[in-house]
Amino acid sequence: MELIPGGTLITATPEEGRALAVLMARKSIGNMQPDTEVRKALRPEYANNADSLTAAAHVVAVEFATVAAANGYWRK
Amino acid sequence: MELIPGGTLITATPEEGRALAVLMARKSIGNMQPDTEVRKALRPEYANNADSLTAAAHVVAVEFATVAAANGYWRK
Amino acid sequence: MELIPGGTLITATPEEGRALAVLMARKSIGNMQPDTEVRKALRPEYANNADSLTAAAHVVAVEFATVAAANGYWRK
Amino acid sequence: MELIPGGTLITATPEEGRALAVLMARKSIGNMQPDTEVRKALRPEYANNADSLTAAAHVVAVEFATVAAANGYWRK
Amino acid sequence: MELIPGGTLITATPEEGRALAVLMARKSIGNMQPDTEVRKALRPEYANNADSLTAAAHVVAVEFATVAAANGYWRK
Amino acid sequence: MELIPGGTLITATPEEGRALAVLMARKSIGNMQPDTEVRKALRPEYANNADSLTAAAHVVAVEFATVAAANGYWRK
Repeated sequence: MELIPGGTLITATPEEGRALAVLMARKSIGNMQPDTEVRKALRPEYANNADSLTAAAHVVAVEFATVAAANGYWRK
Repeated sequence: MELIPGGTLITATPEEGRALAVLMARKSIGNMQPDTEVRKALRPEYANNADSLTAAAHVVAVEFATVAAANGYWRK
Repeated sequence: MELIPGGTLITATPEEGRALAVLMARKSIGNMQPDTEVRKALRPEYANNADSLTAAAHVVAVEFATVAAANGYWRK
Repeated sequence: MELIPGGTLITATPEEGRALAVLMARKSIGNMQPDTEVRKALRPEYANNADSLTAAAHVVAVEFATVAAANGYWRK
Repeated sequence: MELIPGGTLITATPEEGRALAVLMARKSIGNMQPDTEVRKALRPEYANNADSLTAAAHVVAVEFATVAAANGYWRK
Repeated sequence: MELIPGGTLITATPEEGRALAVLMARKSIGNMQPDTEVRKALRPEYANNADSLTAAAHVVAVEFATVAAANGYWRK
């Protein structure tokens, strides 16, 4: 399994960097629970719970901090 | 869906940077739960719960740390 | 609503920076739950619960990390 | 109330920096729950609960990260 | 027990860095709960719970932030 | 009580730095709950609970981020 899709933290834009952060978080989950059916079953559990969504958004924010720093915050 | 509204982390002021951090967190949630009706239904669940609000404020703080660093903390 | 009271992360002292961090966290909550009466009603819920206070203190610590970095840690 | 005891993040040693981080976290709690009696009553609630202690230790770790950075990690 | 497998934070690629971050988190758990049988018994508890997986992914994200900074984000 | 065993964040190797991070987290707990018997009684509570172990591993990761930065990530 590829944990860092594309194999680099460098992206052309903040938008692509954010998408990478989301993917990195997802791959982390996939690495710990490789069974696609189980993951699918767990989806409504968190997608319909405000606190679960907040916790997942927190992980994306932490991943993005790393990706953004890697890209020098895409400053010109 | 646009994950980074405006496509840049650079803002003119701390106030705009903070507003961007809030939006980034919201877009994260919207990306995981794209159904507007579900999100609307979840709103009272967290907006009337002290711990849920604290958790959401935590995410905003983490997003803002990245936005603030990107902008060199808006030092003159 | 003003999210960053004073519109700057720069403060004269660590003490003022800490007070700003506390205010930033509060404004975040106020932004998500604008109803003053609801916020007042939620107050005893977290102010009398050890874990809720710890979680709120965590947010202040994260906000302060950003404010402190912005001010170069108020080193002379 | 003083939020940053001593009014500076600069300390002579890592040990003093750590003690400051602990104090900063405590002052945060004291700022949100100023009633000493209530805080005393809450103490056994978290001091006898493993997860509460872990959450409190987490806050100290975050505060210490800021204090340590402020002091250039006390490198010689 | 080795806490940092390989004894270094430096890796050739982001992918290897991410794998190291995952291992570091696992070694942390193994250090606190050295009984392999207990850890095996706990596995379904978190691998089938969305919030537990999110919390574990959060730890990986934090470990990875350190590994990525150590490697200068693998910029060329 | 010594909060930073050895009184310095500087270690010879990442492995020793990681061990220091673990110790710092433990000393934090010991500082808040100084009764050894209580801490011993709490141990099974978290060592046999997946989420408690994850939360504890999170604290170690945060402490280690500081120790690693202090040591310039042990780059040669």
